[in-house]
Amino acid sequence: MEDNRSSSSALGLRRKIIIDTDVGIDDAQAIFLALADPSAEILAITCVGGNTLLENVCSNVLKVLTVAQRLDIPVYAGCKAPIIGNIKFGEPYHGEDGLGDCPPDILDVGPVDISMLQLEHATTVISQFTKKYPGEVSVICLAPLTNLAIAIKIDPDFTRLLKSVYIMGGNHAGEGNDTAAAEFNFYHDPEAASIVLSNCSCEVIMLGWETCSLMENRFKYSWMKESLYSRDTPQGRFIRNINNRILSSMDASLPGYDQESGFILCDEWVMALFLNPEICAKFCVWSTEVELAGRLTRGQCVVDKRFYGRSSDGKNQVRHVLALDKERM
Amino acid sequence: MEDNRSSSSALGLRRKIIIDTDVGIDDAQAIFLALADPSAEILAITCVGGNTLLENVCSNVLKVLTVAQRLDIPVYAGCKAPIIGNIKFGEPYHGEDGLGDCPPDILDVGPVDISMLQLEHATTVISQFTKKYPGEVSVICLAPLTNLAIAIKIDPDFTRLLKSVYIMGGNHAGEGNDTAAAEFNFYHDPEAASIVLSNCSCEVIMLGWETCSLMENRFKYSWMKESLYSRDTPQGRFIRNINNRILSSMDASLPGYDQESGFILCDEWVMALFLNPEICAKFCVWSTEVELAGRLTRGQCVVDKRFYGRSSDGKNQVRHVLALDKERM
Amino acid sequence: MEDNRSSSSALGLRRKIIIDTDVGIDDAQAIFLALADPSAEILAITCVGGNTLLENVCSNVLKVLTVAQRLDIPVYAGCKAPIIGNIKFGEPYHGEDGLGDCPPDILDVGPVDISMLQLEHATTVISQFTKKYPGEVSVICLAPLTNLAIAIKIDPDFTRLLKSVYIMGGNHAGEGNDTAAAEFNFYHDPEAASIVLSNCSCEVIMLGWETCSLMENRFKYSWMKESLYSRDTPQGRFIRNINNRILSSMDASLPGYDQESGFILCDEWVMALFLNPEICAKFCVWSTEVELAGRLTRGQCVVDKRFYGRSSDGKNQVRHVLALDKERM
Amino acid sequence: MEDNRSSSSALGLRRKIIIDTDVGIDDAQAIFLALADPSAEILAITCVGGNTLLENVCSNVLKVLTVAQRLDIPVYAGCKAPIIGNIKFGEPYHGEDGLGDCPPDILDVGPVDISMLQLEHATTVISQFTKKYPGEVSVICLAPLTNLAIAIKIDPDFTRLLKSVYIMGGNHAGEGNDTAAAEFNFYHDPEAASIVLSNCSCEVIMLGWETCSLMENRFKYSWMKESLYSRDTPQGRFIRNINNRILSSMDASLPGYDQESGFILCDEWVMALFLNPEICAKFCVWSTEVELAGRLTRGQCVVDKRFYGRSSDGKNQVRHVLALDKERM
Ligand SMILES: [Ca+2]
Ligand SMILES: [Ca+2]
Ligand SMILES: [Ca+2]
Ligand SMILES: [Ca+2]
Repeated sequence: MEDNRSSSSALGLRRKIIIDTDVGIDDAQAIFLALADPSAEILAITCVGGNTLLENVCSNVLKVLTVAQRLDIPVYAGCKAPIIGNIKFGEPYHGEDGLGDCPPDILDVGPVDISMLQLEHATTVISQFTKKYPGEVSVICLAPLTNLAIAIKIDPDFTRLLKSVYIMGGNHAGEGNDTAAAEFNFYHDPEAASIVLSNCSCEVIMLGWETCSLMENRFKYSWMKESLYSRDTPQGRFIRNINNRILSSMDASLPGYDQESGFILCDEWVMALFLNPEICAKFCVWSTEVELAGRLTRGQCVVDKRFYGRSSDGKNQVRHVLALDKERM
Repeated sequence: MEDNRSSSSALGLRRKIIIDTDVGIDDAQAIFLALADPSAEILAITCVGGNTLLENVCSNVLKVLTVAQRLDIPVYAGCKAPIIGNIKFGEPYHGEDGLGDCPPDILDVGPVDISMLQLEHATTVISQFTKKYPGEVSVICLAPLTNLAIAIKIDPDFTRLLKSVYIMGGNHAGEGNDTAAAEFNFYHDPEAASIVLSNCSCEVIMLGWETCSLMENRFKYSWMKESLYSRDTPQGRFIRNINNRILSSMDASLPGYDQESGFILCDEWVMALFLNPEICAKFCVWSTEVELAGRLTRGQCVVDKRFYGRSSDGKNQVRHVLALDKERM
Repeated sequence: MEDNRSSSSALGLRRKIIIDTDVGIDDAQAIFLALADPSAEILAITCVGGNTLLENVCSNVLKVLTVAQRLDIPVYAGCKAPIIGNIKFGEPYHGEDGLGDCPPDILDVGPVDISMLQLEHATTVISQFTKKYPGEVSVICLAPLTNLAIAIKIDPDFTRLLKSVYIMGGNHAGEGNDTAAAEFNFYHDPEAASIVLSNCSCEVIMLGWETCSLMENRFKYSWMKESLYSRDTPQGRFIRNINNRILSSMDASLPGYDQESGFILCDEWVMALFLNPEICAKFCVWSTEVELAGRLTRGQCVVDKRFYGRSSDGKNQVRHVLALDKERM
Repeated sequence: MEDNRSSSSALGLRRKIIIDTDVGIDDAQAIFLALADPSAEILAITCVGGNTLLENVCSNVLKVLTVAQRLDIPVYAGCKAPIIGNIKFGEPYHGEDGLGDCPPDILDVGPVDISMLQLEHATTVISQFTKKYPGEVSVICLAPLTNLAIAIKIDPDFTRLLKSVYIMGGNHAGEGNDTAAAEFNFYHDPEAASIVLSNCSCEVIMLGWETCSLMENRFKYSWMKESLYSRDTPQGRFIRNINNRILSSMDASLPGYDQESGFILCDEWVMALFLNPEICAKFCVWSTEVELAGRLTRGQCVVDKRFYGRSSDGKNQVRHVLALDKERM
């Protein structure tokens, strides 16, 4: 999908990214993935209201960076609420604080200094970094797309200078999790999703709900427990702690989890896709719009598959990732 | 999916059907399929505006019955236009007259006596026949669902006495042919589709666009030509003649056809499914609604797959046929 | 607005009407108005679900005709529910039974023989009577427009033979009672309202919510009590009894009522308008559509006033009654 | 409606305003009104795409300030396009350049130095000035509300520090000019209008289309010609020149104009209302929302008049100006 990772790191080039996030357990894990990859240079982490309130998101990002000892990465607060309407707490999955409501003494990160947040607003810095490094910056979107959309409304031309936008969100076959038809990030701010898909002049890569939730892309609980949650490092303990609430309340009624069918990962997959494009086992480029007005379908993507194979026409060309290579993850 | 055909014919029972149609080349072929099957008893054919104007539909049905020498089957005119809006001539596929615009001297059916139409309205007879044979009648819907919907609005309770409703139309994964999101029969009259799915107390079986258009369910042109279009009987010649216009203008721009990928059949498949339930290789029961208000998604089905495997809950339970056994066709 | 009443009665001609109703206290009073006018010939009363369930409506109409000793007028059951969705009990005003929930012993009508209902369906007889007396029949619509809309869907051409349609319902300035934007009858069945306005070839006269609720068109409680509710005839007692519940619970929180501002009458006004066209003190002809898709505006009329004074253009020409002559009522 | 003008000027206090505009002939005239009033202190003029492209708007504002010799007032570029969709050139009234397409040699302003635009973005400075003068700043909105809406999305809390927002736009009785139901500024960016009405914590005063277009608020052509267009000052000549195209093509087909019924002014009225609150002859406070989803009503205001007189409840309280005192203008 892009320059091969190994070749770019051979050249000593690190791929510049801005991570836009509403941390979120899976956002935290996705950020750890990026932090662990020397080929990725995180220019900024921008925060947005979504899985939890903006103030929690900011605090959670600082916690993640504290654990990773990477407080050198600048963190920016962005939009509190979607373009239309208010914060929807869509799912109990992430807990009220967005990180599994783990008691502070157990989480053991220490108090977070909120004054470490940068003064500029997230919507400003996205275009500033892009102009500073024209053609080099990718935005990795792990949350409702409010920040990127507002950045585009303020400066509609800067996306020409972006390298790419990776989006966890939306769908390509009308299947949703927040509603029957819509995925959480897109349903939370359909107008933002529509603005981003309609106005990005760079390549847009989308990892939608259907691909994440495919049976073959899920992770067995036993595997998760043995590998991901068992490392006795500060980061390993942090990951185990933020997942503890889900693990201990492991009953079938919890969305996104089923002991047999396995865990569905989302934000981690899209970060992995960026870090190692070979994980993309199949994709299709389709003209993609977002329904804003439907009674049942608000926030759903409408993908025009009628001219399959002739997908170079049409507006809002989006690269939908359809299959993932779990071995390479 | 139902009582086995062989057992019912063993008992000498013929399965009673009403065919609701907007003939239509594929409707004509579906009707021939039913006429050829001794286990099916066609109580009535009801006509509705759709692929072509109601008067053409009525005339076309009489032509089909003339060719098959089955003018004993009563034919009823129904609704001219969808519940909201007007007739949309969605596709050039069926020709202006709905039967490929074959010149009369070549079609060679002779003048059709329109006075052979029954006096009752289609919306009345559907419930009358149902009450006459409680629990025995299936309606096979090959067209926009206006007639059945209006019948339900007049008499909301009669569907309890229906055996089943088979619908060619709609979709289950947001893929359309008339628009990017909606299939022709549902897009032509979304309100009717919504009424039928929301108010049918009997079993509803849906064959949607995605299943019909699956690559493995298409028919190679060469095969069509050798088998279907080569029989030198009155019916064989009729079928060849109504397909002649498509065959001779066989270029890639024609929707629904591609020399390599093959013909997409729709109405024939749903009739075959009724006649031989074993053709259904896979199905799923999902709560299914129709979007009426969307700007991009009007007429699309919204299928709730979030509780996969626990599909017995929820309203508007519809049996979606997902795979077809082409060998048994 | 039409032939003068006096001249037609001078000629001995009685104006033929079908009353379509969801009785309803104000419907009952409107029917009494029509029964009292020798110039009006009531061909039929057709019933529809709305203010109360269809079975209550049918029963209520028979009660009204019993009190008036006019059981010779045929009564027909129609549609139970709106085209899309279910019966909405919009307001407590009419009581659960639609006639103020007056105890049977007080109402003193005796048991109603439901078998007196005609066998034909309301949607059928509207067009039958129209064809029997071409150009002579007016339909007076006091309820959601489901019956008339379905009649049009079954037989789209019969409205050419109607003399006129009088509608209590809708609005012309975006003001509603059931929602902020929509009037009850139109909100209850927006699709039906849209069908009627879009497909009537005869003159359509609309009395919308704003005109009914104008301060100068309201009736003082004291006046109502002294005049309308004080007559000691069977009909007078019946009217007092069905209003008793409202009168006794006369507190400011009840919608549609305010001791100072007075009673708002609706169905009575539109019937009076038909019986005596001179009551119309001002009207405007505007192209009028019904919003079906809005989140806030579903069921609202959209009236195009941009070409004020040049109203002969445009589709769906509707005569909106804007001012009433209370003296002539 | 606010502190009396005379008293504030008696105190030597000048009322601080930000003018948000899409100049626009009537915007230009409104700005001249503000410039002529010593009691108003124009902190900034912010530009937005609307009647014409953003670059024209910026250039037009600089022309107006050049003519008025007030280039000391800072001018800021804002959003190019509405939140959803693109610039709609709704009406030919303002000409392609937004100022009547008057040839440069006749307009005689000289070349405009676009580098005089400030570097900050309009969406930033609105909140900056508000925080600099808490409780003192009024925003006078003469255009689609994109700039103010985006400012709110970036900083949802700053409106608490605003004194008031005056809006020319929207409606209160479902009457529109751009569509049958919607006024131009609201129809151009319905999402922005919705954001502003839903999120402003300060007083919001709206002058909608119905009030501006009332017969009694229009201006006779002869009066306009003699008074407004006849002054032989630089400003007088400028105003005559930008109106010349309309005046010379004075035929009945031009929207917004009719020789007998007179000129409809909009932006001028709302500015006059701010400068002299006594011009408001009648107002009502109603809960006000904007329809985003309707097929016919997108961009229309939905005003809840059901609790007339009890308007202190409900969200989005907006003061609608219903009558104007033309003598005081
Ligand atoms: Ca996330
Ligand atoms: Ca068909
Ligand atoms: Ca009524
Ligand atoms: Ca303007």
